[in-house]
Amino acid sequence: MTKIVIVAGGPPGLSLPLENQVTIGVDRGCLTVLEAGLSLDWAVGDFDSVTIEERNRIVEHAQHVVELAAEKNDTDLEVALRVVLEHFPQGEVTVYGALGGRLDHSLANLFWPSQAEFAPLLDRVQLVDDQNRVLYRGPGWQTVAPLVGFTYVSFMVEPDSPFEIEGARYLLNASNYFYKKIYGSNEFLDRPIRLRVEKGYAIIIYSRDRR
Amino acid sequence: MTKIVIVAGGPPGLSLPLENQVTIGVDRGCLTVLEAGLSLDWAVGDFDSVTIEERNRIVEHAQHVVELAAEKNDTDLEVALRVVLEHFPQGEVTVYGALGGRLDHSLANLFWPSQAEFAPLLDRVQLVDDQNRVLYRGPGWQTVAPLVGFTYVSFMVEPDSPFEIEGARYLLNASNYFYKKIYGSNEFLDRPIRLRVEKGYAIIIYSRDRR
Repeated sequence: MTKIVIVAGGPPGLSLPLENQVTIGVDRGCLTVLEAGLSLDWAVGDFDSVTIEERNRIVEHAQHVVELAAEKNDTDLEVALRVVLEHFPQGEVTVYGALGGRLDHSLANLFWPSQAEFAPLLDRVQLVDDQNRVLYRGPGWQTVAPLVGFTYVSFMVEPDSPFEIEGARYLLNASNYFYKKIYGSNEFLDRPIRLRVEKGYAIIIYSRDRR
Repeated sequence: MTKIVIVAGGPPGLSLPLENQVTIGVDRGCLTVLEAGLSLDWAVGDFDSVTIEERNRIVEHAQHVVELAAEKNDTDLEVALRVVLEHFPQGEVTVYGALGGRLDHSLANLFWPSQAEFAPLLDRVQLVDDQNRVLYRGPGWQTVAPLVGFTYVSFMVEPDSPFEIEGARYLLNASNYFYKKIYGSNEFLDRPIRLRVEKGYAIIIYSRDRR
């Protein structure tokens, strides 16, 4: 399975991985890729967050460039995910620089599965920074495993979907169901958690306190 | 109108204001208050994110302490807002350290108005960091003014509420309505924007690129 790293324009908060992979830079994230000494396989964006000199450097180093109009309905991450769908349909995607920085960008990035076209990628994309890992799961019973170094696990689901959590420190089922925007600070009991939404998708957030 | 500063446990990303005000520290945010040399009027939290020595220092310096059980349904910010409702019902609240850091905390903080009891505070609370200012507005036509230094304005509303935007660069009304999780990167035209949700509340996010 092809490993794909997308580097968005927010603060990455982590060193980029150096092993072999396909690297897609998104706007200012292209600079992060070049500064890390990685090869920039794809450069995507309107490049309005970089200077003209920086844009030229990006275009010169990128294997492929997808340049967008500044006024567009899609976010840059959405365009990058479309590159994945088209060219690496079986790829496994890790996104850096998607969280932190501009809150409107972070939220748009967090909710990327709201576009139905990205459903095939749901189980294969994660957003990462130094304190968080974000995964996604679709309807039906699903399993998520503990992750070393991450203390907490939290969930967001659609407001109109029933939601159940099994095998975690705090359980949720028909008998004690209550809707919250975010079900925060749950914990693993050294085994996978099972969860179920009926429609839409669940956002699963692993997090840890600042070190 | 009493100015109230709440300092939550995330990275503040900004210097705390030094003028006279009521300062409420939330868990690790109490240390941020003390380190800034401010008086800590209220200390709120379960203090599970600080050492015992730090907890003792907080309790020693705080005028009032609201110590909570570690297992609780409310977030620390919710408890701090309850202090505001009870003791400063006319206060105007600025929250630092609510965004960034743990994503589950940021999201719970962002959606604080989901608890109906906080409705009286809706227009009088903002969350701030170096790149973002977050405001809230209730149902009906509402006005938000441009803010010097912030380029973009974005909106989040409930999925089942009609939503209109007037007087902005990008308009939204019955003729072109589409639902998005987040309406990002809109801009002011040197005059206030008018907006209307029919139910729930609108989250208004002013943002700017990294400097």
